[in-house]
Amino acid sequence: MARRRIIIDTDPGQDDAVAILLALGSPELEILGMVAVAGNVPLALTEKNTRKICELAGRPDVPVYAGAVRPLVRTLVTAEHVHGETGLNGPDLPEPTMPLQDKHGVDFIIDTLMTEEPGTVTLCTLGALTDVAMALARKPEIAPRIKEIVMMGGGFFEGGNITPTAEFNIYIDAHAAEMVFAAGVPITMMPLDVTHKALSSPERIAAIRALGTKVGEATATMLEFYERFDVDKYGSRGGPLHDPCVIAYLIQPELFSGRHCNVAIETGSELTYGMTVVDWWGVTERKKNATVMREIDADGFYKLLVERLGSL
Amino acid sequence: MARRRIIIDTDPGQDDAVAILLALGSPELEILGMVAVAGNVPLALTEKNTRKICELAGRPDVPVYAGAVRPLVRTLVTAEHVHGETGLNGPDLPEPTMPLQDKHGVDFIIDTLMTEEPGTVTLCTLGALTDVAMALARKPEIAPRIKEIVMMGGGFFEGGNITPTAEFNIYIDAHAAEMVFAAGVPITMMPLDVTHKALSSPERIAAIRALGTKVGEATATMLEFYERFDVDKYGSRGGPLHDPCVIAYLIQPELFSGRHCNVAIETGSELTYGMTVVDWWGVTERKKNATVMREIDADGFYKLLVERLGSL
Amino acid sequence: MARRRIIIDTDPGQDDAVAILLALGSPELEILGMVAVAGNVPLALTEKNTRKICELAGRPDVPVYAGAVRPLVRTLVTAEHVHGETGLNGPDLPEPTMPLQDKHGVDFIIDTLMTEEPGTVTLCTLGALTDVAMALARKPEIAPRIKEIVMMGGGFFEGGNITPTAEFNIYIDAHAAEMVFAAGVPITMMPLDVTHKALSSPERIAAIRALGTKVGEATATMLEFYERFDVDKYGSRGGPLHDPCVIAYLIQPELFSGRHCNVAIETGSELTYGMTVVDWWGVTERKKNATVMREIDADGFYKLLVERLGSL
Amino acid sequence: MARRRIIIDTDPGQDDAVAILLALGSPELEILGMVAVAGNVPLALTEKNTRKICELAGRPDVPVYAGAVRPLVRTLVTAEHVHGETGLNGPDLPEPTMPLQDKHGVDFIIDTLMTEEPGTVTLCTLGALTDVAMALARKPEIAPRIKEIVMMGGGFFEGGNITPTAEFNIYIDAHAAEMVFAAGVPITMMPLDVTHKALSSPERIAAIRALGTKVGEATATMLEFYERFDVDKYGSRGGPLHDPCVIAYLIQPELFSGRHCNVAIETGSELTYGMTVVDWWGVTERKKNATVMREIDADGFYKLLVERLGSL
Ligand SMILES: [Ca+2]
Ligand SMILES: [Ca+2]
Ligand SMILES: [Ca+2]
Ligand SMILES: [Ca+2]
Repeated sequence: MARRRIIIDTDPGQDDAVAILLALGSPELEILGMVAVAGNVPLALTEKNTRKICELAGRPDVPVYAGAVRPLVRTLVTAEHVHGETGLNGPDLPEPTMPLQDKHGVDFIIDTLMTEEPGTVTLCTLGALTDVAMALARKPEIAPRIKEIVMMGGGFFEGGNITPTAEFNIYIDAHAAEMVFAAGVPITMMPLDVTHKALSSPERIAAIRALGTKVGEATATMLEFYERFDVDKYGSRGGPLHDPCVIAYLIQPELFSGRHCNVAIETGSELTYGMTVVDWWGVTERKKNATVMREIDADGFYKLLVERLGSL
Repeated sequence: MARRRIIIDTDPGQDDAVAILLALGSPELEILGMVAVAGNVPLALTEKNTRKICELAGRPDVPVYAGAVRPLVRTLVTAEHVHGETGLNGPDLPEPTMPLQDKHGVDFIIDTLMTEEPGTVTLCTLGALTDVAMALARKPEIAPRIKEIVMMGGGFFEGGNITPTAEFNIYIDAHAAEMVFAAGVPITMMPLDVTHKALSSPERIAAIRALGTKVGEATATMLEFYERFDVDKYGSRGGPLHDPCVIAYLIQPELFSGRHCNVAIETGSELTYGMTVVDWWGVTERKKNATVMREIDADGFYKLLVERLGSL
Repeated sequence: MARRRIIIDTDPGQDDAVAILLALGSPELEILGMVAVAGNVPLALTEKNTRKICELAGRPDVPVYAGAVRPLVRTLVTAEHVHGETGLNGPDLPEPTMPLQDKHGVDFIIDTLMTEEPGTVTLCTLGALTDVAMALARKPEIAPRIKEIVMMGGGFFEGGNITPTAEFNIYIDAHAAEMVFAAGVPITMMPLDVTHKALSSPERIAAIRALGTKVGEATATMLEFYERFDVDKYGSRGGPLHDPCVIAYLIQPELFSGRHCNVAIETGSELTYGMTVVDWWGVTERKKNATVMREIDADGFYKLLVERLGSL
Repeated sequence: MARRRIIIDTDPGQDDAVAILLALGSPELEILGMVAVAGNVPLALTEKNTRKICELAGRPDVPVYAGAVRPLVRTLVTAEHVHGETGLNGPDLPEPTMPLQDKHGVDFIIDTLMTEEPGTVTLCTLGALTDVAMALARKPEIAPRIKEIVMMGGGFFEGGNITPTAEFNIYIDAHAAEMVFAAGVPITMMPLDVTHKALSSPERIAAIRALGTKVGEATATMLEFYERFDVDKYGSRGGPLHDPCVIAYLIQPELFSGRHCNVAIETGSELTYGMTVVDWWGVTERKKNATVMREIDADGFYKLLVERLGSL
């Protein structure tokens, strides 16, 4: 089986952590490297958290890079109110001993894309699009070499989660998002519309804990911490597992369905700043630039997740 | 029984027509007058259509006024692609013989509110908010005298119907909407989120036709013309009966449920112009200014509609 | 001599007062009526001030109307910091005894334009454009009947006076301005670029006082109060006589020079809200819609002013 | 004499060329390197033109780097209509033989600032602020180490040159400008208000040609080509020597005068996109972040220019 070659750009975050574990547990994927970006918490924490998760999975060999320390234009907004002070509150994971790579994460993205066969590398973004935008700004030649960008970001029918209309990953660097959606690269977008249907119910967390492994235990503990925010806010049964949807899509795309349409990023108004305006019904002349997912087989998704976490 | 006293501001439009018929067939309501506004079609047609519907219902005594001929700031956008060239395509209704009142519709609204007991008159808006905004601009003292504005307008979780984010009534005069939502008047809003759940399925149209009355026949024919647009666009079973939701709410509010929250109108960006930004989850500091409906008992709604149309 | 027939729309304001006096002292002009609008101070004061000035000039026969009490969309911003609490601080003028007309000022504008021969009535606006916009919204047929709108408003090379980019009259009702500039009516605009060159230096005020008349004395006292704001802010010798430039232009247009070009009104950004964007160099495709004055013969202007005030 | 250490970021452009020559001819300055950026023409031309000018001045030893190939968020707009197809139309300069440095221009800026003593390096930007913004985004620690940014950019009382309100350098990367003006770095800004007073009149060009040197001849020929655009557009006597003002300020700051105030960059509206909103009169609460020059001793400036060109 030819493995799909990916770079994961991430800002752990408990749901990022689960996404990384899902990827590490999936033989269909070859992870060329991971890039940490500022987002849920500052870069110094997201890069450390990324390494912690690699070590939790017994994979200190995966190269981890530090990417952008701040968004392109505006100052950084973080989300400790969701993820806790460390970004990974919940389980007590040891300090990582594996190294952070010297190379800048943006250069890693550029160099990988310029070196590998065009059309063979997929970018999986689990946070703000800053690194991808900086890579595109620095080396526009990478655009046609990217196989696909699969991103967690945005929301339309579900509204936003940081403002009434904006989802966090897009909001914190809407200019980067504007640039990426204009780059002509194939994009698959996992918005809140999907991820809010992938809730970590008590039964689902229990199934993860029941794995009886270190990874299962840490993941369950993480999710119990993580879900409290959304349970309080939405009264839902569990928290939305945003980022793992990106990885699940790479392995079992049939779990998701959506529509190819235009997505425009609002950067010109404070009221709706960071909104992903999806032309779902094709009422504008704007060119289709993304496949926007809307439905998920949530049971299938959690089945896949438990199975793969169990392999670690 | 004390009847609820209302002014209907409308731009017929087939769904406006059904709303007017529903109101005329409901003894709980006392219609002080109707004001036609430019919208679905130009004013010369909406005022004529309003009179046609009154005559269809055998109620040439209801005073009908002509209101705003254009939006406050921008030029008029119409919707013949939905409603047909006359705004009321479908049944072959005779030219009206009842008079149009001389007084300007905006003056009728102002004079009524300044004359009647404060807090006794409800404004039911089925089109753009131009007339209400012009009345508020001309005579701000009316604001605290309005009992409530019940409007069809906006959309949030459902998106828009004229652009990806904007509903037609708000879009065509977003400045009027901005003004009305800032006026401190109690507002109940029936957005697309509700009205797209009130579809004129073949069975429901058949039940209206089965009334065997002139009104039933005309309404069924109207709805068959009207629904084709939405059926084509959304693949839905029938068209959304937007405006009658406003009247149904006045009679049986228990058919609807929603939430009191802030609604802000986007006027500063072309991309999202005319959007009703609903702070459903209370994530901003913005003051609550509207009750936004989200759910409807559609069967109960159509049951009410058939019953009341049958009384005409 | 055929006199030019005008309606003055005004928000006195000391410079409005001087403009009104200049008009009343000029036989070339026939004042059909004056409409007061909310602006420098609330409407209750501007309409009273307008009547005070008519009486100061011995002209209680001029019909004075009350127009808009607030801007179209946003709430009213006033300028007591410039004009004082009454709007006319300085001289001690008696309470007016002449009546305020019953008719709404906007209706006066509409009725006059619909009654008089098309192309014979000029609107002179010395405040926000609310009344004109409301008249255009209510009766668009007036647009082609207006001979010309001569307005004090805007600023470009000189910047703004209420924000770095916005002049007060446009700022307080930018939506009205947007509507008026899109109406297809011939517009002559007296921006800050002109009016800041018409400063009430001590010598010029002295010449007015030297008239030795009641009007001369009151005007000089008014200007001494009025100029303190600009003298403090700009370190200039005297205050800018904004509004009288409009009237002077009607009498001696050769005192002014400018350019026919496009003016667009910024309403989509808070930072530059209310700016009059003048395409002076013709670098856009936007249609020419206004003659924007830039230069003034200030000595000629003050000579005219003294002469005409002397005739009252 | 301690020489002022500078990095020149540039997009030649004839006026960039003159600025570079002025810098190379001035012993007060130590040029650590030059970075070419996309702007007047694409990067491939601006980096070549930068090297051409170094060789014209007999200074192939100055390291020249290629910086950003495109703006941060939007696509590149160029100005061949002003500068000609090559960006340096006019004289026939030989292809350069000196090398372009391998290191990315943004990395050169970062590495220099992180290596040199803090507060000793001045950035002179003669084009879009893309490189500086990318450096700040990639390594925010450079901000407090920059002595000063002296930039050609913006315009206020003079309006813009690419749109009615926007100057070209800011317009083509307004997001970069927004970021740089928010970075807390001391900024001195040479806007069109200054540079439009530094016109290359025939006498001034003649004085340069009269140097009788290769540099003088090439410069005069360049300016004759360059000025035609502004002479046609403005009817002025000569073209504005924008970029050399930056260098002249470093050598003889007393040639310029201005004011320390707030500058905000408009990025939220298409109409005024890229405007530098200068709060010259201090009417807002916004923090002072730039010294905005407004006046220039143009004769002194050209005297300095001729003298220094003569030394090459
Ligand atoms: Ca994430
Ligand atoms: Ca309607
Ligand atoms: Ca005034
Ligand atoms: Ca340049």
